[in-house]
Amino acid sequence: MSQNREAEITSQDDDFRPRQEVIDSVIQAIDDGDALRLDDLLEPMHAADIADLIEQLTPARRKVFLDLYSGEIDGEILSEIDRSIRDEVVEALPHAVLAEAVREMDSDDVVDLLEDLEVPEQQALLAELDRSDRAAVEQSLNYPEHSAGRLMQSEVVTAPEHWTVGDAIAFLRTEDWLPDQFYHVVLVDPRRRPTGYVTLGKILSSRPQIMLRDITEDSFRTISALQDEGDVAYAFNKYHLISAPVVDEADRLVGMITIDDAMSVLDEEHEEDFLRMARVADDSHVSDGPFQTARQRLPWLIINLFTASISALVISQFEATLSTFVILAALMPIVASTGGIAGTQSLAVAVRALATRELTSSNARRVVLRELMAGLLNGLGLAVILCVAASVILGSPAIGIVLGTAMIANQIVAAMGGCWFRSRSANSALIRLWPRGLS
Amino acid sequence: MSQNREAEITSQDDDFRPRQEVIDSVIQAIDDGDALRLDDLLEPMHAADIADLIEQLTPARRKVFLDLYSGEIDGEILSEIDRSIRDEVVEALPHAVLAEAVREMDSDDVVDLLEDLEVPEQQALLAELDRSDRAAVEQSLNYPEHSAGRLMQSEVVTAPEHWTVGDAIAFLRTEDWLPDQFYHVVLVDPRRRPTGYVTLGKILSSRPQIMLRDITEDSFRTISALQDEGDVAYAFNKYHLISAPVVDEADRLVGMITIDDAMSVLDEEHEEDFLRMARVADDSHVSDGPFQTARQRLPWLIINLFTASISALVISQFEATLSTFVILAALMPIVASTGGIAGTQSLAVAVRALATRELTSSNARRVVLRELMAGLLNGLGLAVILCVAASVILGSPAIGIVLGTAMIANQIVAAMGGCWFRSRSANSALIRLWPRGLS
Repeated sequence: MSQNREAEITSQDDDFRPRQEVIDSVIQAIDDGDALRLDDLLEPMHAADIADLIEQLTPARRKVFLDLYSGEIDGEILSEIDRSIRDEVVEALPHAVLAEAVREMDSDDVVDLLEDLEVPEQQALLAELDRSDRAAVEQSLNYPEHSAGRLMQSEVVTAPEHWTVGDAIAFLRTEDWLPDQFYHVVLVDPRRRPTGYVTLGKILSSRPQIMLRDITEDSFRTISALQDEGDVAYAFNKYHLISAPVVDEADRLVGMITIDDAMSVLDEEHEEDFLRMARVADDSHVSDGPFQTARQRLPWLIINLFTASISALVISQFEATLSTFVILAALMPIVASTGGIAGTQSLAVAVRALATRELTSSNARRVVLRELMAGLLNGLGLAVILCVAASVILGSPAIGIVLGTAMIANQIVAAMGGCWFRSRSANSALIRLWPRGLS
Repeated sequence: MSQNREAEITSQDDDFRPRQEVIDSVIQAIDDGDALRLDDLLEPMHAADIADLIEQLTPARRKVFLDLYSGEIDGEILSEIDRSIRDEVVEALPHAVLAEAVREMDSDDVVDLLEDLEVPEQQALLAELDRSDRAAVEQSLNYPEHSAGRLMQSEVVTAPEHWTVGDAIAFLRTEDWLPDQFYHVVLVDPRRRPTGYVTLGKILSSRPQIMLRDITEDSFRTISALQDEGDVAYAFNKYHLISAPVVDEADRLVGMITIDDAMSVLDEEHEEDFLRMARVADDSHVSDGPFQTARQRLPWLIINLFTASISALVISQFEATLSTFVILAALMPIVASTGGIAGTQSLAVAVRALATRELTSSNARRVVLRELMAGLLNGLGLAVILCVAASVILGSPAIGIVLGTAMIANQIVAAMGGCWFRSRSANSALIRLWPRGLS
């Protein structure tokens, strides 16, 4: 074990990725079809690193890799592989390997894997689980997608409220089904409703005769199984939770969410926001091929083609003016592109503020007014620059004034456009926040 | 305690924010200058919620609030307040309150607070700490900004390698300095170098005579105090770490980083990426005033003014052509704006892939080729649409072909532009990744 760790550390780069030499050797082994060498190279690696490596192979190499290595792929590696290529991996695995992997996984990882599969495949894998695991996974799958119920694991360590520290320790020493990672013991009443939780640190540092209910945490919070996973991640981040019990509609304990799952959700939500902001489909992935990539981006390009055509139509109404002042044709795009940037800026700040729950009904009116003011200020500043430049360079104060005025109007519209567009795109959050805020 | 919790839960909205009625009552109490009512309202609230509330007040109300409530602001609330307004709060607090707050805080929160303050103020607060806490904070402050050394807390629970589970439990029961939250006991050799760690769950579920070194975790990793905090957050997310020991250059244990801190860093890094992508200063905040907002956005607008002017200059060289085909003046911006979007898309995907370490030397060449191909494909598609539309609507196949050709060239340049710009903006990551990737 300590030798293994040594190997693991020296095969790591400073930035928590496998060394380039190791990656190169793995690629060499794949190209040579050398299964033994591949096993040797991957044996000391962390499941997350093996998953990363699989993601980064070219599709052709990945196919060869899966032929050579499929027998070694276990539950841990499988749950680390990105959704975008997991289908491909699952299809390449023999059923026996897949069944074994699923039996090893925590219930939340099984749910994560199964929810993407077709129903017959789902059923075939569910049949491989023992009865209680299957019941837990099926319960989770009954909750809506992206809900806390899908995110939770069913393995929870509970204790009755009347237990002492000594009782808890004696209990933990005799149980052998305990989850790999757990940080709290949840106190439940006789109807299995959570009433508090105790950190393992508190249990370890308290005398055996202390009552568990006297050392519960202030930060205790339960999460509804129907809560959106984004809200769950927000709560973990905000209240520094490490794990939180999940309850059904009757407030009975049904599972537990741990912070590493919440952190992954936070990461995914950020990625989606970021890609949507850049007008890219939010399932874009670095391993996509060129056709997939082109198809993901085309819709926004076509939408832009039409909106730009509308503005071209408006401009073409002024053909007579343009043929008199041809220089305007060269200058117009300056105003337009600056407005585009201002709109993006305004939109971005609002989207972020919604995501972090900083934009609320208490400050929505203020934020909109601020955007308006900022648009006006920057419009004025840019107008002055443009007006002076046009007067000096082109010797035409009239054109300068026209451009400057256009710039001010444009900046204000852009700022407001950002607000409007946001209220359309971030609908679910705004439905909650807006009505009270601007009424 | 259980009554308090009850109050806390009912004062919460479903989305983990205080209820609007509570916020309204707090605002009413501030406007009435009613300190007693304010205390009553805030007493059951979580520190993070009080901090949120302070952030969302208008600057004028915040000032009144701090006058009324400053005596009650403790270390917990203070460490939850966003940096953008913490200075304001710190200045408003009486020195005695501030000193008391700092004494209560974990060393990592003290560092987080002090690093933003002026040196004299820093010294004054350091003097309030007892000797060992002061030494710990000063050690952290000696590490560079945004390093693991700044992020860590110095309170770590360690054990010699030869201890048994029973030894560890006996030790933990007698110590009273233990951190509020801890999840592992770190095994150290006689020179205080960490050699592994044991989860509290394992300690609790093992028989007293078991050796700690026989139940250490496979996922054990140490973090260098000089490591960038972004890398640390990445490692926590990737390896599902809950806490990790931090070591100095001689591999000696100097502190511990816990996942909640890593999660905050991940959140901040995402926010910076997102705002930079939208060309907004990355310290923008929803509580900024209109002047601050305008100033943060102006630099990018001015840069755009100049780059757009260059393209205007190029266009103006073709004044003669434009005066013959005025319709081109209306159509040119269609090509330009579509190119702008394609460039943003290409850049965004690359920035994200760098942030998630998915873009590496193994696949950089493939990603660049893919962008080129995707640009060509979308350029072709858009060119056909534009060419047909121009031929049909304007009855001029020649203009259609000109626009179509321009569109293809533009999309390819945009795709490559995204790659180039990324290599400039994400420099630190690329210096590590690029040379090996494209050589």
